[in-house]
Amino acid sequence: MNVAVIGLGLIGGSVLRALAATGHHLLGYDADPATRATARTAAAQAPPGQRWHVAQTVGDAVARADLVVVAVPLPAVAGVLAEVRDAGYTGLLTDVTSVKEPVRALVERELRAAPGRPARFVGGHPMAGRETSGFGAADANLFTGCAWVLCLEEGVTSVSDWLELAALVTGLHARVVPTTATEHDRAVAAVSHVPHLLATAVAAVAADNPLAGTLAAGSFRDGTRVAATRPELIAAMCGGNAAAVGPALDALLAALGQARAALDAPEPIEALRAWLAPGSAARRAWPPRAGTPVTLPARADELLALGRVGGWVTRVAADRRTVTAVRPVPPG
Amino acid sequence: MNVAVIGLGLIGGSVLRALAATGHHLLGYDADPATRATARTAAAQAPPGQRWHVAQTVGDAVARADLVVVAVPLPAVAGVLAEVRDAGYTGLLTDVTSVKEPVRALVERELRAAPGRPARFVGGHPMAGRETSGFGAADANLFTGCAWVLCLEEGVTSVSDWLELAALVTGLHARVVPTTATEHDRAVAAVSHVPHLLATAVAAVAADNPLAGTLAAGSFRDGTRVAATRPELIAAMCGGNAAAVGPALDALLAALGQARAALDAPEPIEALRAWLAPGSAARRAWPPRAGTPVTLPARADELLALGRVGGWVTRVAADRRTVTAVRPVPPG
Repeated sequence: MNVAVIGLGLIGGSVLRALAATGHHLLGYDADPATRATARTAAAQAPPGQRWHVAQTVGDAVARADLVVVAVPLPAVAGVLAEVRDAGYTGLLTDVTSVKEPVRALVERELRAAPGRPARFVGGHPMAGRETSGFGAADANLFTGCAWVLCLEEGVTSVSDWLELAALVTGLHARVVPTTATEHDRAVAAVSHVPHLLATAVAAVAADNPLAGTLAAGSFRDGTRVAATRPELIAAMCGGNAAAVGPALDALLAALGQARAALDAPEPIEALRAWLAPGSAARRAWPPRAGTPVTLPARADELLALGRVGGWVTRVAADRRTVTAVRPVPPG
Repeated sequence: MNVAVIGLGLIGGSVLRALAATGHHLLGYDADPATRATARTAAAQAPPGQRWHVAQTVGDAVARADLVVVAVPLPAVAGVLAEVRDAGYTGLLTDVTSVKEPVRALVERELRAAPGRPARFVGGHPMAGRETSGFGAADANLFTGCAWVLCLEEGVTSVSDWLELAALVTGLHARVVPTTATEHDRAVAAVSHVPHLLATAVAAVAADNPLAGTLAAGSFRDGTRVAATRPELIAAMCGGNAAAVGPALDALLAALGQARAALDAPEPIEALRAWLAPGSAARRAWPPRAGTPVTLPARADELLALGRVGGWVTRVAADRRTVTAVRPVPPG
């Protein structure tokens, strides 16, 4: 495929490298001239047959593309979509943004406004963040084994578009998770966005006490690791998903309120032990163990039901009529 | 030295192995017969000259000891102290419990009640937890580079007792942090105990959603790692330090309340960015960088001032009149 990647940070750069390494034709673009220069130098150093080109404008990047991957932070998505539309692009488009409802709304606003045939859209999100960022941190193997959401809105997304992207992404050895934008945003609020806020809060509260900084060990190191992410990225991620992060943070605050009450109980150790038990058991049961692969019909209802029970797709059949799917094994 | 270690879990077992490996005479004891058998078998497999013995009772363990290390969870400390007292032990005693005020109070109650000369006490806490537990996870190198608190209550703790333990612990390549029980408990509440509660809350809240479990990636994995610790250990640690954990959790809840308000702000991304900045900067400045080692007089006031600025002791001079100390370099 001819693939254009717009935005060459950690994720966009890794998509560029990973797809180039699996035999696709890649053209990258970044708004930052220094990043374009870095990406161009890196291309020359890649093995022959796994190189990419770097375009000077979004228009040049998408002109001959079969697929456009938008890999810019949420605040920049609307501008990129407008450029892609104005370039007359009518092919398949996906993104790698960490929130899906707001991107879907932007696509609706920016692309459907195109005269004639608008580009077709499948929202995506590889769950492969790191606390490092930038093209320099990009890695062709970043997606191996990672969950990669591809949104499927029943009655809206074309299943054949979804399967085309799923085939591409399973080729990077990612686990493709079919779900809706709403279900995605709610789930990542709980397991990614809220944890970023917690990590940052812990680091901030400890910062005033030098003794605490010296005594901080493994639980602090790991518990606050993602707080080192650039604050503008966390802000875009959490603020862009505020509608789901708010309730997820409320649920967490309610749970912590119970822990606070347990600390004031007449027997705090006993009260805390009861409070801790379910979360501790849940963490020991994570990550979910993969069940035996099964073959499913490549239909929206089957795929969405798979995502809802925590399952994923590992392969799309050549005839696009079935997929190989894995469901997690219930713990115990 | 003849050292008795009471309690052969992860920390006690590691103290046993580490001190045996550095030429001391070690005698271990655990209330669990199976653990004693495991420790005995492991001793036979250790290199000659680095072995230890396992006693059948606390009395046997402490009978000829110069130092007793109490390495049981907080709820078991009182019972062990009573046994040590009833065995007539009058030497030096330390502990490795993760809270220091409650242990100091128990020592006061249990040991000072001894007829004649009571044992001398220096509270200790190696900051070297892991989510694994038990003698099987014990590791002679667990303390290399780790911060090891030794409490020094001005006018109460004998500085010569403190230096004796500091010399022993620096021999394990730990960084000895001099502080008071109160300052310790406040610091670890913020950087260890509260993070354990947060990790468990995140794991609990995510548990109801199988999709969330599948999408959970690095921020969830690292942010909840310590939730897999046995709940009774976290409960003992946090509940035993409830007086300090309560206010630390309140500080965190207040910070998260600000994040919650930022999510509801007219421009949540901008509001969150401002909220995130200090914690993000603090995390990037952690861990503190070590300054140039200096020589300090081995006096309580000097040592406590060192601990208060986040410093530590790396060596005790042979004449016990000075220590080699390191202060962290301020960031920037």
